[in-house]
Amino acid sequence: MINSGEVDYVNGKTCIFGIVGHPIEQVRSPEMITAELVSRGLNALMVPVHVLPADFDRVMPELLKLQNFDGFVFTIPFKGEARRLASLLGPQATFVGAVNALVRTNEGQWLGDIFDGLGCVEAFRRRDISFAGKRVMMIGVGGAGSAIAVAAGRERPASMRIFDPDAQRAADVADKVRRCSPSTQVEIGEPTVDGMDVLLNASPVGMLDDTRLPIQAETLPRDLIVFDAIVKPEMTPLLSLARESGCTFIQGREMMRGQISKIVDFFQTRDFR
Amino acid sequence: MINSGEVDYVNGKTCIFGIVGHPIEQVRSPEMITAELVSRGLNALMVPVHVLPADFDRVMPELLKLQNFDGFVFTIPFKGEARRLASLLGPQATFVGAVNALVRTNEGQWLGDIFDGLGCVEAFRRRDISFAGKRVMMIGVGGAGSAIAVAAGRERPASMRIFDPDAQRAADVADKVRRCSPSTQVEIGEPTVDGMDVLLNASPVGMLDDTRLPIQAETLPRDLIVFDAIVKPEMTPLLSLARESGCTFIQGREMMRGQISKIVDFFQTRDFR
Repeated sequence: MINSGEVDYVNGKTCIFGIVGHPIEQVRSPEMITAELVSRGLNALMVPVHVLPADFDRVMPELLKLQNFDGFVFTIPFKGEARRLASLLGPQATFVGAVNALVRTNEGQWLGDIFDGLGCVEAFRRRDISFAGKRVMMIGVGGAGSAIAVAAGRERPASMRIFDPDAQRAADVADKVRRCSPSTQVEIGEPTVDGMDVLLNASPVGMLDDTRLPIQAETLPRDLIVFDAIVKPEMTPLLSLARESGCTFIQGREMMRGQISKIVDFFQTRDFR
Repeated sequence: MINSGEVDYVNGKTCIFGIVGHPIEQVRSPEMITAELVSRGLNALMVPVHVLPADFDRVMPELLKLQNFDGFVFTIPFKGEARRLASLLGPQATFVGAVNALVRTNEGQWLGDIFDGLGCVEAFRRRDISFAGKRVMMIGVGGAGSAIAVAAGRERPASMRIFDPDAQRAADVADKVRRCSPSTQVEIGEPTVDGMDVLLNASPVGMLDDTRLPIQAETLPRDLIVFDAIVKPEMTPLLSLARESGCTFIQGREMMRGQISKIVDFFQTRDFR
């Protein structure tokens, strides 16, 4: 029963989750993760938390002391820093070496894991596509890309070719994929679609007004599955080419939806009040 | 336009306000203050913030650094501590010497003020009753009571008699009322209704299952105006007696509504994004 002069979506018992970033106004998690929490019948809310980079190291340990703030998601520029706040690491984070979400366990510890990659795998799963046995071309292995490479790698593809302009970063991620899937043939090399089943772009090429393709091609093989992690625009130049070429293509927003579902699963590893 | 899978009451641009207390589950400000903020067309939300007393001094200065958390309300047991966080004091707080709300000014300072008393005066105003020229009996001058005494005092009553079992506290509040209203005759003494126009109870006598009256009386003068700051129960023994006696009576929840309106006015002293 809600009286007039009251709203029905927040009260003293509401579990609060925060998305921490700088800047913060552009984040979409508050409306999307809150909707997912509420759709599962939880009295919970995700609020934006705007922390200045210079304040992060002092603010965050104190925020973790708030007794009804039970989990956090970290976005730009804090994905690297967030790992230091975790006292336990989940399976993805252990391989990737980074964290983008924290949850307070029932024992009061902070468990960290990373969901960029799981969101991509979940988006594929929702299309009934598995990476198992596939030959994968992976372009761009920064923060999100390394998580995607590991999550896809854990699905046991036949092979993965990794490209990143930063050779050291490419080598590091190749090692991670080898560790989590010893049966996968991992190599480093230029972007190509020859002999590939899946093309994953996690580079920023094609973002916003960037009209470039992350790969040199006039057309794509019709049976190639093309994924782009970029959310804006929804149809990147790469995805437009995939559509023209008759390929199956998966958009960044599908990864985002998959990630939201996985993050709320993660938050639910704790008991709700 | 809200897409499916999203809620419409929080997003990256939402201004966050917090109510800080221990315990927190019983607070009513999240649903009530949020409703008032939203009814004024603001993209804003008040969330519960559960801080343990041992953490308060370290947590709060860091919480004040969150760039989109623009104001706080303090409840039990932090009304005393909150004053130290204010770099500026509003007119009520200056007289009362305590703070129950903070807002970040446009210049980035933290302005503190106290609204318990203003809520009472606002509840009277909504009934078209002024304290000006009235003879007031004030029972109980703890945290809320001292704020009520000062706020009523600033309305220039003819006289105010103050009772509190703690004689030092009664004397301190009497001095405060004298300072803010030199024309008011202030005295300390036992509770009485003889020669009074208004009876204000801000003592805990009559709260919850307490069946006692804060004043010894079988009946009350019909033209006495009776106020009780207690919110639960809505009809305290004192208010029930006032009703039986044919008096005008004002409930604690009316003060709460008045206070909410005044707190949101206070939050609006800053520019909203």
